[in-house]
Amino acid sequence: MATQDELKQQVGYKSVDDYVTSGMVVGLGTGSTAYFAVERLGQKLLDGSLTDIVAIPTSERTKEQALSLGIPLVTLDTHSRLDVAIDGADEVDPDLNLVKGGGGALLREKMVEVMAEKFIVIVDESKITSGLGPGFPIPVEITPFCHLHTLRTVEGLPSCKGSKAVLRMGSSSNNKVDGDDIAVTDNGNYIVDLHFESPIQDVKAMAKELKETVGVVDHGIFTGMTTAVIIAGKDGITVKKP
Amino acid sequence: MATQDELKQQVGYKSVDDYVTSGMVVGLGTGSTAYFAVERLGQKLLDGSLTDIVAIPTSERTKEQALSLGIPLVTLDTHSRLDVAIDGADEVDPDLNLVKGGGGALLREKMVEVMAEKFIVIVDESKITSGLGPGFPIPVEITPFCHLHTLRTVEGLPSCKGSKAVLRMGSSSNNKVDGDDIAVTDNGNYIVDLHFESPIQDVKAMAKELKETVGVVDHGIFTGMTTAVIIAGKDGITVKKP
Repeated sequence: MATQDELKQQVGYKSVDDYVTSGMVVGLGTGSTAYFAVERLGQKLLDGSLTDIVAIPTSERTKEQALSLGIPLVTLDTHSRLDVAIDGADEVDPDLNLVKGGGGALLREKMVEVMAEKFIVIVDESKITSGLGPGFPIPVEITPFCHLHTLRTVEGLPSCKGSKAVLRMGSSSNNKVDGDDIAVTDNGNYIVDLHFESPIQDVKAMAKELKETVGVVDHGIFTGMTTAVIIAGKDGITVKKP
Repeated sequence: MATQDELKQQVGYKSVDDYVTSGMVVGLGTGSTAYFAVERLGQKLLDGSLTDIVAIPTSERTKEQALSLGIPLVTLDTHSRLDVAIDGADEVDPDLNLVKGGGGALLREKMVEVMAEKFIVIVDESKITSGLGPGFPIPVEITPFCHLHTLRTVEGLPSCKGSKAVLRMGSSSNNKVDGDDIAVTDNGNYIVDLHFESPIQDVKAMAKELKETVGVVDHGIFTGMTTAVIIAGKDGITVKKP
């Protein structure tokens, strides 16, 4: 039986094999599954089966991996449209809405992936859920000014009813930590994690209300963006589309 | 005939006289007109005609003025609801939509003023316009990461058609300046100023599209917030309500 790393490798490799062709602008995600997509892209550029690729990394970590593999990199500043972006997710629901941002990179990931013509999500089957919320808290990136006020405001939104908002402290290896031990994102903001005990009723409404809130920069709900989810499970690989 | 400073004093004083009563939580705006509202609040606390007031300043500058006058200060972290907020504006249209943020304090001003039960705007008549846009550029606060991409994205929004987006450089005395001479807000973000040659057709749609954009933190359009505008002109003071 395949290990979890082998499952991640299978979907990482398949995403590049199925969706990346020569000449493309490719968005590269962050995390232990996206790692294998980046690895595969490097292999195929090296052996010449892919040519004329430029890639946009979504984090410093992915940038370093891509550079080490000789993948040519650009940024959104020069390339605002991507042909495809490939990334993992923390949870995926039946409508292919995602939660992302456990690592705190949600804003840069969303900035890149929302510009992609195709957004391919790669996960192992443990990430598939019947409803977002209980399995993984919803991260919300907020401006540091009066963050306790914004935390309360977010927790009190109609669509966030029943949530418990927790300011993320500096435990994640992806976050810098300031003097008060509050986790600080690459963009200098804070993260509030919204914990739910029962599934979120209306994910789209929640995404909208969160982004509309003054003091909120963005959030980890990715809705209406997914082109396909490639899922690795003990019975093999499946692909889901909207 | 009254000088412009005398006009600003008239509306600043009137806003406190008409809308602030003892026991209130009061939001204090920023700028040359709001200055006089803060001054009046300090006078009335000193002479005892107002008591039991706490105030929330929207900038460091206003905080310093309020402290020098002995006005007790709190923050949104302890007081999320305000009875009244008083501030100036850069432009006011016939529906009492505002443009604010020439000084770069738009996010903190909006965070405070959106929580006020009454929001009182004080201006001289030069700020009244038949349509927002041509008279004063619309400031948009964006995250620094890939800011050229976000600048293009904002300029390309359907509601921003015809605009020219300009990254604000470090000329404003209210902004800190980084090594590249790009103006940096108190929140560590950049400002894009959207310049229009003709009036914006749908201000509410534009406010919505801007805030929804990934990479945009907030913007200087204040819509649906105004309780009253107190206007000083050469023919005296007038008050407009929605």
